[in-house]
Amino acid sequence: MNKVCVLGAGSWGSALAMVLASNNNDVFIWTRRQEQADEINNEHTNESYLPKIKLSGKIKATCDIKKAVVDSELIVLALPSQKIRFLCKEIKDIVNEKQILINVAKGIEYDTGKRISQICEEELPNNPYCMLSGPSHAEEVSVNMPTALVSASKDIVISRIVQDYFMNEYLRVYTNTDLIGVELGGATKNIIAFGAGILDGMGYGDNSKAALITRGINEICRFGKEMGADVSTFLGLTGVGDLVVTCTSMHSRNRRAGILIGKGKSLEETKKEIKMVVEGITATEAVYNMAQDLNIDMPITNAIYKTIHMGLDPNESIKELMGRAKKHENENKLVL
Amino acid sequence: MNKVCVLGAGSWGSALAMVLASNNNDVFIWTRRQEQADEINNEHTNESYLPKIKLSGKIKATCDIKKAVVDSELIVLALPSQKIRFLCKEIKDIVNEKQILINVAKGIEYDTGKRISQICEEELPNNPYCMLSGPSHAEEVSVNMPTALVSASKDIVISRIVQDYFMNEYLRVYTNTDLIGVELGGATKNIIAFGAGILDGMGYGDNSKAALITRGINEICRFGKEMGADVSTFLGLTGVGDLVVTCTSMHSRNRRAGILIGKGKSLEETKKEIKMVVEGITATEAVYNMAQDLNIDMPITNAIYKTIHMGLDPNESIKELMGRAKKHENENKLVL
Repeated sequence: MNKVCVLGAGSWGSALAMVLASNNNDVFIWTRRQEQADEINNEHTNESYLPKIKLSGKIKATCDIKKAVVDSELIVLALPSQKIRFLCKEIKDIVNEKQILINVAKGIEYDTGKRISQICEEELPNNPYCMLSGPSHAEEVSVNMPTALVSASKDIVISRIVQDYFMNEYLRVYTNTDLIGVELGGATKNIIAFGAGILDGMGYGDNSKAALITRGINEICRFGKEMGADVSTFLGLTGVGDLVVTCTSMHSRNRRAGILIGKGKSLEETKKEIKMVVEGITATEAVYNMAQDLNIDMPITNAIYKTIHMGLDPNESIKELMGRAKKHENENKLVL
Repeated sequence: MNKVCVLGAGSWGSALAMVLASNNNDVFIWTRRQEQADEINNEHTNESYLPKIKLSGKIKATCDIKKAVVDSELIVLALPSQKIRFLCKEIKDIVNEKQILINVAKGIEYDTGKRISQICEEELPNNPYCMLSGPSHAEEVSVNMPTALVSASKDIVISRIVQDYFMNEYLRVYTNTDLIGVELGGATKNIIAFGAGILDGMGYGDNSKAALITRGINEICRFGKEMGADVSTFLGLTGVGDLVVTCTSMHSRNRRAGILIGKGKSLEETKKEIKMVVEGITATEAVYNMAQDLNIDMPITNAIYKTIHMGLDPNESIKELMGRAKKHENENKLVL
């Protein structure tokens, strides 16, 4: 049995802890809240995050981050994107350079526009890094529903090790070495999901949403290519796969936030109503700015940015998008 | 005003006739049923196919195919795939070679495994050919909801002419010259939609469906590449876009048929219950056979084929799919 730890006891962290436990590892899950640790240790539940799920008795929760991290082969970072840098600083003096960092947050750092791997490289430069991503509601993984994920690392050996740790009969893990593509897919899908929510809030149908998703993928590819990603990654689980789930599921906060905007609420009202971090709001601004700087044509991201951040009426945005010049479908022969 | 005709007065044919009429064309719609023609001409409705929709008074219905076809600039073929060859034979002696054939059926000929363009080439070899395809419920287009389509022809000039005829403020049309990719995308999406239905019928969730869709796209790309398609087309409106709509909508017959199989019904019971042509059943068999012949690895199509046509328990199919050897996500560097 290998020791592994999950830092963060939200729904996804808990579901991954369950996978690691059922794959016969010695799992520590870290949380700042003592009552949550007690609940996990004594009741084997985490009711606020994974309602009605019985956790394995093998999962040990602790508020002592050192106890979780020391001697773990894997360190799963299961906090929101904006908290990862702080978390890295917190474990800086505890980790050794053999421990593999596995990020599961899909976002971009607000202040810097950086990907999570860049944050980790700055804060914990000596540790191998992997992102585990893909279309995955925690609620479904926790009841063993068939799910496919991607373990992405620049180092194929690392992504294979992570594949081995997580793969089992209900969780299929594919390796991928295009870390940039996997990270950008995870962050940008929240922009498109926000847009899908706006369309839903306005009462539009499947055709409009399919057009948004597809043309959204097209511009994500254009953006990703400029950023050094392999365009084919966006065709995969962490691109199209995750995008589809996020755009069609009510589990998605980004989509729910978009629905409120589409119904005419302001950004402030929307934030107040959703309460939690909406990664898409940050990601829209970050990608919009980068696209402006690099002169990348992203009409959908622009329209969503103007709708969210400049208060443009979404009806006007749609009129503008539909009224652009005639185009060839794959004008820039992107994927070739 | 140009004269154009739509052969077939189903829901999609009628919706496209509305688009052509609102773009100021002189539109004839042909149907075999006199009472339907009378309803369209007198009541300006087509209640069985587009309930509650008022058709333009400019649309003229006729049972006289010659009256519809002669002098039309465009001939829209709006019948199911299996009826296209017969329809071509029917108009063989009426058409002149300047008239553009526009097919809107998404399927493969049952007996021969041929694409619709191949059928038209055999039956009407001198006419320019275009496929108009993409994610589009007729019900939504008929109420002017924003929709994006692709006009695909080997001849870019033809696809531009068709783009001009159909494009307006609620219908955005992209050109594409990869006819094979567009045709195969339309036919194969029904296979995956069938599989998505099976998962739904078995009670599985978003994760499983996203995995099916994404890995389905992966093997469609592999298949398409062998058949001469441009893989990037599958990332577009007629690939991913249409696939997503078909896999998530209850409008899809293919998905509904899959749900019945997933609930344990036999193929015969399913066919009886759906009543209409389920293109996915034919497409699965055709693609399965071609993949066997050409030795193309298509695990999902195989699993769906065995479930539909050989009565394999879908639980066994899933176990088999999840239990395959570990893989790299884009093993064959398909898109590069």
